[in-house]
Amino acid sequence: MSIKRSLLSAAIAGLFSFSANAADKVDLMITDAMVLTMNQDKTVYQNGTVVVDGNKIVAVGDDSLAQKYTARQVLDVDGDIVMPGLINTHTHVSMTVFRSLADDVPDRLHRYIFPLESKLVSRDMVRIGANLGNVEMVKGGVTTYADMYYFEDEVAKTVDKIGMRAILGETVIKFPVADAANADEGIKYALNFIEQYKDHPRITPAFAPHAPYTNTTETLQKIAKLSLEHDVPVMIHLAESHREEEKIAERADGMSPVQYMHSIGALNKNLVGAHMILVDDQDIQLVKESGMGVAHNMSANIKSAKGVSPALKMYDEGVRIGLGTDGPMSGNTLSTIDEFNQVAKVHKLVNKDRAAMPPLKVIDMATMGAAKALQMEDKIGSLEVGKLADIIVVDTKAPNMIPVYNPYSALVYSANSANVRHSIVDGKVLMKDRNMLTVDEAAIRQEALEFTDVVRKTVVESGEVVQ
Amino acid sequence: MSIKRSLLSAAIAGLFSFSANAADKVDLMITDAMVLTMNQDKTVYQNGTVVVDGNKIVAVGDDSLAQKYTARQVLDVDGDIVMPGLINTHTHVSMTVFRSLADDVPDRLHRYIFPLESKLVSRDMVRIGANLGNVEMVKGGVTTYADMYYFEDEVAKTVDKIGMRAILGETVIKFPVADAANADEGIKYALNFIEQYKDHPRITPAFAPHAPYTNTTETLQKIAKLSLEHDVPVMIHLAESHREEEKIAERADGMSPVQYMHSIGALNKNLVGAHMILVDDQDIQLVKESGMGVAHNMSANIKSAKGVSPALKMYDEGVRIGLGTDGPMSGNTLSTIDEFNQVAKVHKLVNKDRAAMPPLKVIDMATMGAAKALQMEDKIGSLEVGKLADIIVVDTKAPNMIPVYNPYSALVYSANSANVRHSIVDGKVLMKDRNMLTVDEAAIRQEALEFTDVVRKTVVESGEVVQ
Ligand SMILES: [Zn+2]
Ligand SMILES: [Zn+2]
Repeated sequence: MSIKRSLLSAAIAGLFSFSANAADKVDLMITDAMVLTMNQDKTVYQNGTVVVDGNKIVAVGDDSLAQKYTARQVLDVDGDIVMPGLINTHTHVSMTVFRSLADDVPDRLHRYIFPLESKLVSRDMVRIGANLGNVEMVKGGVTTYADMYYFEDEVAKTVDKIGMRAILGETVIKFPVADAANADEGIKYALNFIEQYKDHPRITPAFAPHAPYTNTTETLQKIAKLSLEHDVPVMIHLAESHREEEKIAERADGMSPVQYMHSIGALNKNLVGAHMILVDDQDIQLVKESGMGVAHNMSANIKSAKGVSPALKMYDEGVRIGLGTDGPMSGNTLSTIDEFNQVAKVHKLVNKDRAAMPPLKVIDMATMGAAKALQMEDKIGSLEVGKLADIIVVDTKAPNMIPVYNPYSALVYSANSANVRHSIVDGKVLMKDRNMLTVDEAAIRQEALEFTDVVRKTVVESGEVVQ
Repeated sequence: MSIKRSLLSAAIAGLFSFSANAADKVDLMITDAMVLTMNQDKTVYQNGTVVVDGNKIVAVGDDSLAQKYTARQVLDVDGDIVMPGLINTHTHVSMTVFRSLADDVPDRLHRYIFPLESKLVSRDMVRIGANLGNVEMVKGGVTTYADMYYFEDEVAKTVDKIGMRAILGETVIKFPVADAANADEGIKYALNFIEQYKDHPRITPAFAPHAPYTNTTETLQKIAKLSLEHDVPVMIHLAESHREEEKIAERADGMSPVQYMHSIGALNKNLVGAHMILVDDQDIQLVKESGMGVAHNMSANIKSAKGVSPALKMYDEGVRIGLGTDGPMSGNTLSTIDEFNQVAKVHKLVNKDRAAMPPLKVIDMATMGAAKALQMEDKIGSLEVGKLADIIVVDTKAPNMIPVYNPYSALVYSANSANVRHSIVDGKVLMKDRNMLTVDEAAIRQEALEFTDVVRKTVVESGEVVQ
């Protein structure tokens, strides 16, 4: 479309000798911007312009670009930071409705979360939680996320409506859950979902086997095969806990979870492993060779005292790795920008080196690294011509952001999610000056608050202890 | 004043037989609040009321309280969290104008910061930076802070104007600095400042010897003596780095920094030690016995890979300890609320225990613990009758804050500084719905941005490398 327009405008310009004023008509132009492209060279335009037509970026450059286009909508951002939308590589968005329940109890997943979910997961819960989490993410600058949960077709409807981009993984697990009695039913549910959404422009349906130890080898192999046939991602919790490590070692002759996945033929470029805390150098080699992606959820991992993944090492060795928040019962927020600070600092701490994990690497892991982890680096992750227009604008005039001598430092060490001013996905402005444009935030809030009363009642009635 | 009013109103009520409607007249009432008192019993009022008259809290309780008073100003906060104002126990507020300069360079204090300061610290710089930092803190819920810097009389003017509460420590250091040629001149400057501000209702002037290793024993002893004479605090960087540890061991026969301070008679209840990373059990005993305060600046400490202070152990053993951010070149933000998350999580990580440092302890270290560290627990740190009215209101309806099953969890794991809606100091509303009421935020921002151009020019001209 932009080529046609461009030719037409050139023709008109020639015809009427308007060549000096020739301007291509486009949909959106962001001007007076400090543009962090996050391209290969990490080009920064101090007085930059980003030009969008339809759902794509058609030009990125300095302020001279602004003269070459006429845009239906111009966002003059007055020197604010313009950068690729953040990509959250791992979450369970619907769990927002459970946030702040029983934080910090021992063996929480098995003793608290699974029982809670068996009582409360439903289509309604999934929809209500996803709506709330989507708003939180858009307001925090997340434009794409990767989800693992139940009833993912409900999540898909919310993503479609708000206008975000997402990879949505339908859970497969060996015990009975809300939308399947066993793993095979889970696979069936996933296949239906994949069929339904395979052609959606912004949604990629996927398989989400919960973890190696909560599925059989047979199930994991079946999913690996189906994912290649349907060319869809497989998202899994991998190398997360000692419990998992022990169970897999028992099952597979002492192998590590990564070795095991490799041995059964499930380690490939379709796979995205979340956490990857318990990986050694040999595991990292397997990960790298497989071309799989890694979701690094440091903030959630240290909350449960599980340790720190050697994410910096993986990044430096060229593994496809990006930041994720994990679900809102684990994280507990969904905006990776609120984790930049601790991601940078905790890697300095564990590496005993203040120069380790500099801000630029953190931002790269939140954008291009995350795009690579999700095998989407040809479409998103940087501001480059031809890429999809997923763009955020970050306020540089809030008191916590002044001054910006170094934009990467300001983003990592000073910014929080409320500093995001505008969020754009697929060329469409979803949030402008912190107001949601495609959904009714007040209605979503109200529905979430009403559901929390159901949760309170259920948790109290069941005798579960709320901290 | 409140007693007089109360008697008068009772008299009037009796006179006119209004007893059924008898209502004391007060200045401010906060209603429909989830009140976290942070008192000894950690009382929470789910439907609470806080009543303020003049600069003091005159009542705290449930919603029935609201009937007993008539207030000039009522803040109906619609279920939001109401809690004591946050107390930042350690910062260098004026350094906001240097924020995001040369983060992460090795030996940054001696190779970058001291040379930068020798070029740029001035009365103007101190005022401009303090104005900016004050706004950031009030907007982030900080109502009291402890500062160490130069020209503290300039900081004092900004604190007086905005209406915050602060302990302001004038730096004493052995080499020439912007406002003193040597330590003795620094002491003289401090004494003048103390004389000038000793009776200010919200400002406590103090001595701030930079560190043990940057001052002589004689200077440290002189300050200890003067601080007792004038009954003012002494703030110092203590047990922060291996460099300091080595220099003190050399000076004092292998002693640790804490042992050394004790040995020279400088460890007492007037002292507030910032960082306290390199302390062993013996040091902790000395700290406890001395009654001194500790400022725990975890986020800044791990940014420079200095390690994690055994702050949890100190807290559990009854040491007076509270959270601080350190200066904005170190932190890089000034709102402790943005550090709650990592304070909780990093202590879980280093203690290998997800139950370590639960949210309640973090909030206690940001309020009552911090008040104790600054020897101000009889005045601030909790919402109790008779205490000064330093109060903040935190939004519970922002998407990142929903739901609030546990308010401490929500504050620690989900909140950021932008969730603070109102900030009240000394009974006066300084920020309402995120708008600053006592200062002109736009003018302060403009002046700060203009000063950053001076910094840019100076840093570039001097050949210093900006990252
Ligand atoms: Zn997860
Ligand atoms: Zn300091």
